[in-house]
Amino acid sequence: MDTQVVIIGGGPSGLLLSQVLNRAGIATVVLERSSRAHVLSRIRAGVLEWGSVELLREAGIGARMDVQGLPHDGTYLTDGDRMVHIDFKALTGRRVMIYGQTEVTEDLYAAQDAMGTTVLHGVEDVVIEDLDAAQASVSFTVDGARRTLTCAYVAGCDGFHGVSRKTIPEAKRQEFERVYPFGWLGILSRTPPVHDELIYANSEHGFALASMRNPNLVRYYVQVPLSDKVEDWSDDRFWTEFKRRIPAQAAAALVTGPSIEKSIAPLRSFVSEPLRWGRLLLLGDAAHIVPPTGAKGLNLAFSDVHYASEALIAALAHGSTAGIDGYSARALQRIWKAMRFSWQMTTMLHQFEGEDSFAAQMRRATLAHLADSETAQKDLAENYIGLPY
Amino acid sequence: MDTQVVIIGGGPSGLLLSQVLNRAGIATVVLERSSRAHVLSRIRAGVLEWGSVELLREAGIGARMDVQGLPHDGTYLTDGDRMVHIDFKALTGRRVMIYGQTEVTEDLYAAQDAMGTTVLHGVEDVVIEDLDAAQASVSFTVDGARRTLTCAYVAGCDGFHGVSRKTIPEAKRQEFERVYPFGWLGILSRTPPVHDELIYANSEHGFALASMRNPNLVRYYVQVPLSDKVEDWSDDRFWTEFKRRIPAQAAAALVTGPSIEKSIAPLRSFVSEPLRWGRLLLLGDAAHIVPPTGAKGLNLAFSDVHYASEALIAALAHGSTAGIDGYSARALQRIWKAMRFSWQMTTMLHQFEGEDSFAAQMRRATLAHLADSETAQKDLAENYIGLPY
Repeated sequence: MDTQVVIIGGGPSGLLLSQVLNRAGIATVVLERSSRAHVLSRIRAGVLEWGSVELLREAGIGARMDVQGLPHDGTYLTDGDRMVHIDFKALTGRRVMIYGQTEVTEDLYAAQDAMGTTVLHGVEDVVIEDLDAAQASVSFTVDGARRTLTCAYVAGCDGFHGVSRKTIPEAKRQEFERVYPFGWLGILSRTPPVHDELIYANSEHGFALASMRNPNLVRYYVQVPLSDKVEDWSDDRFWTEFKRRIPAQAAAALVTGPSIEKSIAPLRSFVSEPLRWGRLLLLGDAAHIVPPTGAKGLNLAFSDVHYASEALIAALAHGSTAGIDGYSARALQRIWKAMRFSWQMTTMLHQFEGEDSFAAQMRRATLAHLADSETAQKDLAENYIGLPY
Repeated sequence: MDTQVVIIGGGPSGLLLSQVLNRAGIATVVLERSSRAHVLSRIRAGVLEWGSVELLREAGIGARMDVQGLPHDGTYLTDGDRMVHIDFKALTGRRVMIYGQTEVTEDLYAAQDAMGTTVLHGVEDVVIEDLDAAQASVSFTVDGARRTLTCAYVAGCDGFHGVSRKTIPEAKRQEFERVYPFGWLGILSRTPPVHDELIYANSEHGFALASMRNPNLVRYYVQVPLSDKVEDWSDDRFWTEFKRRIPAQAAAALVTGPSIEKSIAPLRSFVSEPLRWGRLLLLGDAAHIVPPTGAKGLNLAFSDVHYASEALIAALAHGSTAGIDGYSARALQRIWKAMRFSWQMTTMLHQFEGEDSFAAQMRRATLAHLADSETAQKDLAENYIGLPY
């Protein structure tokens, strides 16, 4: 065999898997379509569950995160000017870490470089074969040449549009999908955060999220119709809209500035089952997508890495394939709970076009229940900080 | 004035209000459209929150309930053959009481007879007037004669189709409504309950509920399309369908028998605001309807009685009208939380025609989360046994 595990995709889940496996003495090759610069330019998630924080530390890449990351002990959910504080620390004893996906990816690349692992960029036309044979093979084009690698297992970390999931015959896949009738217009701006914790805002004008990356870099969002284009949204229009969706007392502290990035992302829930097909394991967005409400996307990819790395180490270092056989069921159990949480957070915070007046009242009643019930707060907190692996 | 409070409607909420007020020395007249026999023949709710139990005891009508009622320490929510037990007693220290609305109404009539209060039956063409004047008046026809009563306050306990709510000008009412795209086919049968606690069953064939009235009288339901007619459902068809929707281990213990009542009820969420208009207070179904999932209808009417009776006693016995002024806001706060709970229970347990496969997965994931999270169980239990007044 050319290597033990071929990892398709050099985003955070592929790199973290490579990191964990190499530290356990397992040889990997990571195949990434884009350049490293392009991977690092992707603006994505920014909230790490504590389980993700511990996973990164155990993988030896927690040093910069522990210096630069911002631990958050809670978050706010708001309804108009009513602010409900969810105190993760008091309710669960745990918290989350604000540390951008871009930073995590940079740390992973640095660690992979230091270990001398193989990460190939500019890889195209990947074909995965022989998943039922004694060894699998992955063929691809890089630098104009066609190459083939044989391996014991293939890890599909190549996202929603990647080839890995599609390698499983369509008739053998069961897909579940919900497309939400709105998008998130997000901006990055080099301004101080409007509040010391995140604000998930329900308002009569729609949803807004005040998030952050560091003490001078904010990531703010407003819910927009799917028909809107980025060009429709000047910075001025964004700030006006954002300001009227967050509580007045927060808005009073808002510092605005030019956007350094602006984009509209659709919201989708998606799961493809199974996560394992012969010698192929699917991880992260290759198998499932969550809407960003509740910050589960990157964290769910990392819990897949946890389960998949355990299974691969057991198989390749100890000769036990029970973990491989059970990977799909084990990972899906946690995935479906996170799907439920992010669907519920999305439903309870967004306006749906054409909804009846009862729907808006249910959002308000959900916030009112949260405000008055420590049990409801604890349920939200336990899900937000991350269910146990 | 002819009396202090005219109560429109002689169902459980009107009778309980009369009971509580008369015990506080306040004179009432209850006006009921139907005969007593007809009121007593209505098959309705059967689960009393502990707050309702205590309210009935304090009103002096708890004696028979405490002998014949069945305290339940928990309930089951199921998904296929998976049974999730919600242990009210362990989670909240409280429980619920199984005691039919018919029994409660019978006890209330007996108590009203014993106190010699006035309950007029066969009352028609009720007109409520002078709600902004020094005294209100209620005119009606009974035994062929037109009569008018003057009073300090009017309590509208006459249900969804009653005149009380409609007395508030339409332009001054705000109504919120959700009509669910299915009904409940319910039967009464003189058979022993299939289980010692209620079973709320989600299944691939739709929702079912195994409820009971006493150790030899069950109330079972299955979700049916709104287009179905009672005539479509023979007893045999009902039992076959019911059996395949509850978990196999429960179905194995099912005793079937002839139905002694069979009907289809639509499911609706409805709230009309405000609950107070001058000298008129609205209570129970006159102002709000919940779907039966979660057993909140009668209990919510009783919490309205609690708030309204406090307000009326303060006004009429102590001269303070602050409670009257605050009645609507105070009652609505609890009403909206019960609306939320019953909407959520309905959504998480029923199949919706034309739903995507993701919706069914969300129901399963909600049950899976409940099964594994004591916090989620506690949240459900706190709502089910009833939020504090």
